[in-house]
Amino acid sequence: MTDSDAQRTILDETQKLALLDETQKLALLEETQKLALLNETQTQALLDETQKLALLDETQKLALLDETQKLALMDETQKLALLDETQKLALLDETQKLAFPVGGDSKTSPVERDSKTIPTIYAITPTYTRPVQKAELTRVSQTFLHVSNFHWIVVEDTEKKTQLVSRLLTNSGLTYTHLNVKKQDKTTHRGIPQRNIGIDWILENVTRDQEGVVYFADDDNTYNLRLFEEMRTTQKVSIWPVGLVGGIRFESPILNDAGKVSSWHTMYAPDRAFAIDMAGFAVSLKYFRQQSHVRFDPKSRPGWVEPTLLVQLGLKKEDLEPRAENCSKVLVWHTKTQNPDLSSEKKLIALGKPSDPTVEV
Amino acid sequence: MTDSDAQRTILDETQKLALLDETQKLALLEETQKLALLNETQTQALLDETQKLALLDETQKLALLDETQKLALMDETQKLALLDETQKLALLDETQKLAFPVGGDSKTSPVERDSKTIPTIYAITPTYTRPVQKAELTRVSQTFLHVSNFHWIVVEDTEKKTQLVSRLLTNSGLTYTHLNVKKQDKTTHRGIPQRNIGIDWILENVTRDQEGVVYFADDDNTYNLRLFEEMRTTQKVSIWPVGLVGGIRFESPILNDAGKVSSWHTMYAPDRAFAIDMAGFAVSLKYFRQQSHVRFDPKSRPGWVEPTLLVQLGLKKEDLEPRAENCSKVLVWHTKTQNPDLSSEKKLIALGKPSDPTVEV
Repeated sequence: MTDSDAQRTILDETQKLALLDETQKLALLEETQKLALLNETQTQALLDETQKLALLDETQKLALLDETQKLALMDETQKLALLDETQKLALLDETQKLAFPVGGDSKTSPVERDSKTIPTIYAITPTYTRPVQKAELTRVSQTFLHVSNFHWIVVEDTEKKTQLVSRLLTNSGLTYTHLNVKKQDKTTHRGIPQRNIGIDWILENVTRDQEGVVYFADDDNTYNLRLFEEMRTTQKVSIWPVGLVGGIRFESPILNDAGKVSSWHTMYAPDRAFAIDMAGFAVSLKYFRQQSHVRFDPKSRPGWVEPTLLVQLGLKKEDLEPRAENCSKVLVWHTKTQNPDLSSEKKLIALGKPSDPTVEV
Repeated sequence: MTDSDAQRTILDETQKLALLDETQKLALLEETQKLALLNETQTQALLDETQKLALLDETQKLALLDETQKLALMDETQKLALLDETQKLALLDETQKLAFPVGGDSKTSPVERDSKTIPTIYAITPTYTRPVQKAELTRVSQTFLHVSNFHWIVVEDTEKKTQLVSRLLTNSGLTYTHLNVKKQDKTTHRGIPQRNIGIDWILENVTRDQEGVVYFADDDNTYNLRLFEEMRTTQKVSIWPVGLVGGIRFESPILNDAGKVSSWHTMYAPDRAFAIDMAGFAVSLKYFRQQSHVRFDPKSRPGWVEPTLLVQLGLKKEDLEPRAENCSKVLVWHTKTQNPDLSSEKKLIALGKPSDPTVEV
């Protein structure tokens, strides 16, 4: 036994501890031991905020949020994606539909801005001043208001745009363009110059990268909403039956076994290249651009306006794209509104007591 | 100096440390020292999950969530509350509007179930089989589809409900009730038995706690959507002008300086107690219940049907609630659709080649 061995053995435990200063004691502990020494409160106090966050797994994080906080986290796009169909429908009330911001002769609605992924339907509607004009435009605008990515091009047969149509478009909630051109030639079929400047406007103003479909939508026809989704995928020219036209229940393309148009169900001139009403076809904007000089011929007789256009477009019957379940459904009607009896109004005028002329009807 | 004093002084530091076993070393540390020993990784490992969660404040919790997680947290009601008006509008496309689940002769749409806070408009529409019937019902249904809390009661003038009307209602997307009653008496004005069983249905089937408004909405009229919000707050009977009726531009109540109805702008029998068209007034359901025996009189002549009902209801002219900016706006038109020319169809039938009768028009 050495001297130092001898010295160690004679120290008891208490004596050994008393010999160490603090620094020495700490140096003695290995890491595992140190951890075991801490109680919970102390451990928590050691963490800074960043560390605490890093400790949580996803499930825990979610459990921490109250409802108000969750709502505050969402951006608008996400909120929209969450809704199922029933909920979306429940969200709309009358006031909202009527409350679009508006302005100017051409207006883009929020709907169009938000949905760039489907082709826009450009509907060209010629219109002229008459007692039922406001009623007809009101009713057809409510139909169009259900159609997404819809741009209404209303062309008045007037020297100047009227206040009635301007106000109606402003309040319609629709994306629209308001044009006018007065038909000068008495021999010209009504609506032809109006449709032609509508085409001009589209080809000049719609950007080339915008997919679209051109439809000639008169203000007195009746449209099933499905029609617009049928025409939306038009590649060249799509086609379908039209109800209550040409003196018969409906006119329609007749399809062959291959599902292509072979002839026409019509009483009027079935040997026309395209025996089809204005309401019965739509042209893709891309295809129209390829024959951008083509317009309706003001010299065409009624019944020959449509075929003349389609022939000019270089189309063959076989190119037509049948819609509406192989042309077996009527989704548009050639309705006509009666010119109202205003005989008593004439009497009131004669009496110097007309219906208040400041009230727009 | 004692022996033990002498022994301690002769130990150097290294020797002292070597003397301690592990248990002794731990006992030497005070709490503060222990904490100072831990590095960050160790500290984090010490916390159990519950402790970690308790450490986070609200702001930190929110920052932890990624977008997918946030979306998963929301319930449906919250999602709906987040949308602004523009977004709601952008959500609806054509396909959605047409894709309502349907069934039976009476259907409640999701819209009605979700919005109990505003009075329901019960629109009673008599209809009869004619070439333009489907077009007219299609068009008016698209108008009504914009109106929240709207219940369409369609009453056919037929022995049996027709497939045409049944299908149309099923596909309309509207809350509806489909009824029928055949008018037997040739002297009865068209639509009277139909409106009366519509009233029967409402009084028998709508619960007494449901606030509502009854409107007689013919299928050929044209309605500005604002009209429905004007009538929605009817207490007894509300009233407004009607365009293109009675042979004049519009018929209207005339208001006195107090804003009450004093007389009538009409050419036909202005001395009637209520010189008002069917489209020109609405009755609160509550008021109708108070005179629940009242119905349209089948013996009334045209033009006297409406005043007879309102007199029966115990109403006075001063009770009427003028709407549409003190009866200065036309929000409904008494439009009439032409009976279409089907002369060529007769020729086709004579030739044994009618338009395909299986195609519904």
